[in-house]
Amino acid sequence: MASIFTRIVNGEIPSYKVAENENYYAFLDINPLAKGHTLVIPKMEEDYIFNLPADVYAGLWEFANKVAKAIDKAVPCKRVGVAVLGMEVPHAHIHLVPLNSESDLQFSNQKLSLTKEEFEQIASNIAQEFLSL
Amino acid sequence: MASIFTRIVNGEIPSYKVAENENYYAFLDINPLAKGHTLVIPKMEEDYIFNLPADVYAGLWEFANKVAKAIDKAVPCKRVGVAVLGMEVPHAHIHLVPLNSESDLQFSNQKLSLTKEEFEQIASNIAQEFLSL
Repeated sequence: MASIFTRIVNGEIPSYKVAENENYYAFLDINPLAKGHTLVIPKMEEDYIFNLPADVYAGLWEFANKVAKAIDKAVPCKRVGVAVLGMEVPHAHIHLVPLNSESDLQFSNQKLSLTKEEFEQIASNIAQEFLSL
Repeated sequence: MASIFTRIVNGEIPSYKVAENENYYAFLDINPLAKGHTLVIPKMEEDYIFNLPADVYAGLWEFANKVAKAIDKAVPCKRVGVAVLGMEVPHAHIHLVPLNSESDLQFSNQKLSLTKEEFEQIASNIAQEFLSL
C-alpha cells in the first residue's frame, strides 16, 4: 500500500506544495513547529533515509538545500534547522524548520494552528523564492 | 580565531574521534542525548550549513551517511536521527543521534554523563565499524 507521502505526491491527499521536481517533493507540515516548517521527501518509497540509494540520497540533500534557501528568503528567521526522525511515517522525510532559537526545533513544542489561507500564503511565498533561485 | 571545532580537528582540544578523512571529521558529543551521539563536521569553517560550497555540502552528507551506518552497527538503536541547529557553535555540524523513540531527539532532554572509558569504548566501536564499511 502506498505511504501517505506517496499519496500526497500523487495528489490523492491534498498538500501545500512548495517545490517539486522529477524525484523530490516538498510541502508544508500541517502540524508546524513554526511558520514555514516544510517536509522534503524523495518520491521513491524508502522508510529509512540512510537506506536510500546513494544517488537518491545525494539528490535529496541537494534538493533540500534549495528548499532551505527559499525558506530563508520567504520566512523571517535566523536560519533553517534540519531534523530527520522518521518513526511515524515509513517514508524518509527531512524536516526543515525556520528557527529563531535552538528550542524552536523541539518536537514536543505546541504545534501552530494556521488557517488554510495562511498555509497557502506561506507555501506560495516559499514556492516563488524556490523558482527564482 | 579558530572555532572550537577547528581546534578539535587540529588536536588542540581532545575529542573522542570516530572517523576522519581529508575534508571531514566526526567525534562524540560530550553532552550526549544518547550513547553514540556523534557530531559530523566539515573541516572548512563555515557557520551555516546551507552556505557551504555545493561540493563540500554534498560530501558532508555523504560522509555523515557512512558515519550513521557505522553508528547503526555499533550502537543498539532503532535508527539514527539527524539534527542541525547550529546556533551555539559557529561551525556547521550535524548531530547523529541513536534513537529508540522520537523523543530521544529532544535537545531539552537531560544529557547523559559518561565516563572517559565509556566514551572511548563507544568511539572505538563506531570507528571500527566505519573502517569496515
